[in-house]
Amino acid sequence: MDKDSRVQRKRSRNEDLERMRLEMRDTTASIMRLIQKRMTLSKQIGEIKSTLNMNVKDEKVEEDIMNMVLGLSDEIGMSREFSSHFLDALLAESVRLQQIQQDYKSGNVSRLLSREKSKQTHLSIFLKAKQIEASGRRILHMEVGEPDFSPPSEVRGALTESFDLKHYHYSEPAGILKLREVIAKKAGSGISEDMIAVTVGGRFAVFATIVSLLREGDEMISIEPAWPAYRECADFVGANTKALKTTMADEWIPDTKKLEEMINKRTKMIVLNYPNNPTGKILDKKILEKIVSIAKQNAIYLLSDEVYSDYSFRDFSSILHHAYKRSIMVSSFSKSHAMTGFRVGYAIADKEIISNITKVQATALTCVAEPMQYSALAALKARTSENVEMVRKRLDIISNRLQRMSLCFVKPDGAMYVYPQLNNGLQGLSLVEKLLDRGVAMAPGSGFGEAYVQFIRISACQPEDELEKGLDILESVLANG
Amino acid sequence: MDKDSRVQRKRSRNEDLERMRLEMRDTTASIMRLIQKRMTLSKQIGEIKSTLNMNVKDEKVEEDIMNMVLGLSDEIGMSREFSSHFLDALLAESVRLQQIQQDYKSGNVSRLLSREKSKQTHLSIFLKAKQIEASGRRILHMEVGEPDFSPPSEVRGALTESFDLKHYHYSEPAGILKLREVIAKKAGSGISEDMIAVTVGGRFAVFATIVSLLREGDEMISIEPAWPAYRECADFVGANTKALKTTMADEWIPDTKKLEEMINKRTKMIVLNYPNNPTGKILDKKILEKIVSIAKQNAIYLLSDEVYSDYSFRDFSSILHHAYKRSIMVSSFSKSHAMTGFRVGYAIADKEIISNITKVQATALTCVAEPMQYSALAALKARTSENVEMVRKRLDIISNRLQRMSLCFVKPDGAMYVYPQLNNGLQGLSLVEKLLDRGVAMAPGSGFGEAYVQFIRISACQPEDELEKGLDILESVLANG
Repeated sequence: MDKDSRVQRKRSRNEDLERMRLEMRDTTASIMRLIQKRMTLSKQIGEIKSTLNMNVKDEKVEEDIMNMVLGLSDEIGMSREFSSHFLDALLAESVRLQQIQQDYKSGNVSRLLSREKSKQTHLSIFLKAKQIEASGRRILHMEVGEPDFSPPSEVRGALTESFDLKHYHYSEPAGILKLREVIAKKAGSGISEDMIAVTVGGRFAVFATIVSLLREGDEMISIEPAWPAYRECADFVGANTKALKTTMADEWIPDTKKLEEMINKRTKMIVLNYPNNPTGKILDKKILEKIVSIAKQNAIYLLSDEVYSDYSFRDFSSILHHAYKRSIMVSSFSKSHAMTGFRVGYAIADKEIISNITKVQATALTCVAEPMQYSALAALKARTSENVEMVRKRLDIISNRLQRMSLCFVKPDGAMYVYPQLNNGLQGLSLVEKLLDRGVAMAPGSGFGEAYVQFIRISACQPEDELEKGLDILESVLANG
Repeated sequence: MDKDSRVQRKRSRNEDLERMRLEMRDTTASIMRLIQKRMTLSKQIGEIKSTLNMNVKDEKVEEDIMNMVLGLSDEIGMSREFSSHFLDALLAESVRLQQIQQDYKSGNVSRLLSREKSKQTHLSIFLKAKQIEASGRRILHMEVGEPDFSPPSEVRGALTESFDLKHYHYSEPAGILKLREVIAKKAGSGISEDMIAVTVGGRFAVFATIVSLLREGDEMISIEPAWPAYRECADFVGANTKALKTTMADEWIPDTKKLEEMINKRTKMIVLNYPNNPTGKILDKKILEKIVSIAKQNAIYLLSDEVYSDYSFRDFSSILHHAYKRSIMVSSFSKSHAMTGFRVGYAIADKEIISNITKVQATALTCVAEPMQYSALAALKARTSENVEMVRKRLDIISNRLQRMSLCFVKPDGAMYVYPQLNNGLQGLSLVEKLLDRGVAMAPGSGFGEAYVQFIRISACQPEDELEKGLDILESVLANG
């Protein structure tokens, strides 16, 4: 090709480029006009709905649109992930516009930040109780899951030793090797130290798992009643939480048929928490197997929070024994070793998942404080079976008292709570406020799922005589208002 | 209105609803087809560009489109925030599709996770050095900013005491009141304890600040060379980092004219880090004032990481003295009190910003480990001026040696590093690898910004004789290769 024709060709390419850029501008503008049209439609539909007394959100209609969008994606060769992500953004924006236009907050985190404000949970009651205590009154803490007994005595020595041995440096982001080795050994065969990340409490293990595996618009299924942290972490990345509600009548056993029906293309994770907070339920092995097989069939992650597994009063089967590559087991030293304030937990999973969890941890906070890691290592040498017996006995005491008050509940298989239903339509939240006035803090059941307004959660983290005092107050308030 | 006409009206509304829903479906489908068209165009433009040897990303063109989109938003009454967010998603998807279609990772976190893999920083060199040490060889650590001296002796007692006084429980998410009070007092007038969040190291203060204030598509300006954490945290939420590059020739002083030119509608934050890691620069007060005024004019957040402020060898002015409501000061106990492994830092800002930072911390990890908070409280009673003198002396030693090797650098005003440029086009990364072979770890300059491939960072966190040994090796490698 001679020079002239090369120059000419280049010129014509430049013209092509200019023409295509203009077309791109026009296309972008057309897309925006259509989006605006769509939003106007959505607003009008909302108005009609409100005159017809219908809900603003209609899951069936949204599901239909999503299916259409996914079908069309395949047809025109667009990535399903992008198009569902895009539709979610449209839906979210419509809802947002219909709500408070002026108070548009920044980030995905916004959903979390705005949700946190209004909700009453065991934590908000705890903070209220602390405020009352600051004014000089004593409050009995039966609202939080914080053991009243001490960490193993081995921990005391480990703290001083950590100073003398200069164990106060940056550690590997996944945690010190020794601790991971001991956790791996305890977890059983097939688990190696590179399948473990030591995290800032079980909570950061949950957080890092959810934020590294879910994205905006993904769906996570949580089995309610449930610890609110799962939903909060999903909110953090803009993922949607769908609740599979369980009932006391069904002895808190999840309906696996319903679970299967809830799963769609956007479902990315199921969260399990057994022994359960707040019900104390432990699943039969068969049910767990069924859930694992559902997850397998749909290639869904299974996050199993087993932080209460040491407090199991019947057979408990860890997710680790089900050899599922997409499962993540989370645990911590907070409950088993009464080390809540040490903030040491861990995740056990496939190497690649652990590597992502570790990267999230390295980005957010470098690593877990080294003296706390060495304290956890020392704690693992201690026997904790006495604590387990003690909690079991306390749960019996609470259960007996509640029975005498004619409250219904399912006797806990494990964990450290009883979750009774109140009679005569009494709301947990209003009871909890009355109890706080009388000097005892208990947790409102609705903190674990909006369906459970008639429940309260009573924690066994107090000595027996204190528990009795708290239950006396409960009995008196229930009898006399 | 009689019953018949009410029924009829309801029926006609239901028909309206049905019709509008169909229109909504059609509109959604049209939007998707246009998006597909846009992506095809974008791909074709990419192909032409590659034959013309042009960059895939063209900031000027993107800026033009953004301006058009914002203008159109105003015209058709769409929220500017939504439309810019939407355009960003389109651009990101186009780029993503052009890259690796099959390796589509989940979440915003994906950008972070994929970036982390390839980049060599002081941290990756540190981990390499640790691996070499595990095989039995000794490595001199002049790559990380981890003081070799001990935390104050007060901390040892605080550790044991924290066990005996049962300081191992959940604390308030913002940190124990006493510690916040002492930090507030130290920070000076106008700072109250509710303007402080105690965090898991300064790093989590940076993380929580960035993720609670920035959203996908927002822009953050970082003054390079810079600690890579800022960019990593922005990546985490999908915000874009723009680098304002400074040069050794300008004595690392940022060009405030350039800064002003970089700011657009999407700019939400400027990150300052003085005394600077890695250059040791401290800004003149006038320059800082100019930056604050630019931020004020544009209502941009100013994140000021002042973790090295105790190591200032000339006047240093904290952002707190500039009374700017959108500023966030971050610091920690890691460098000032040699407590890296304790992971205690803090943010000081307006109450509302602190409240959001605290919520992020509560969601991710509940609170900082209580024994670590009490250790920090004890550390604040200690004098640390001897450490500062020691580091200053070490920096002098390093500077003198580097001068003798004829390396160019700006003498540090503070912090604990020297950041020299290598001669004859020698690349920092290849030098660092040779040095590691010879038993000394130093940090590649490119870890702090891709423009600084010819720099290395030498850390003063070793005793003088060790520093001399490390510098002997450097001198020998530079002389003989």
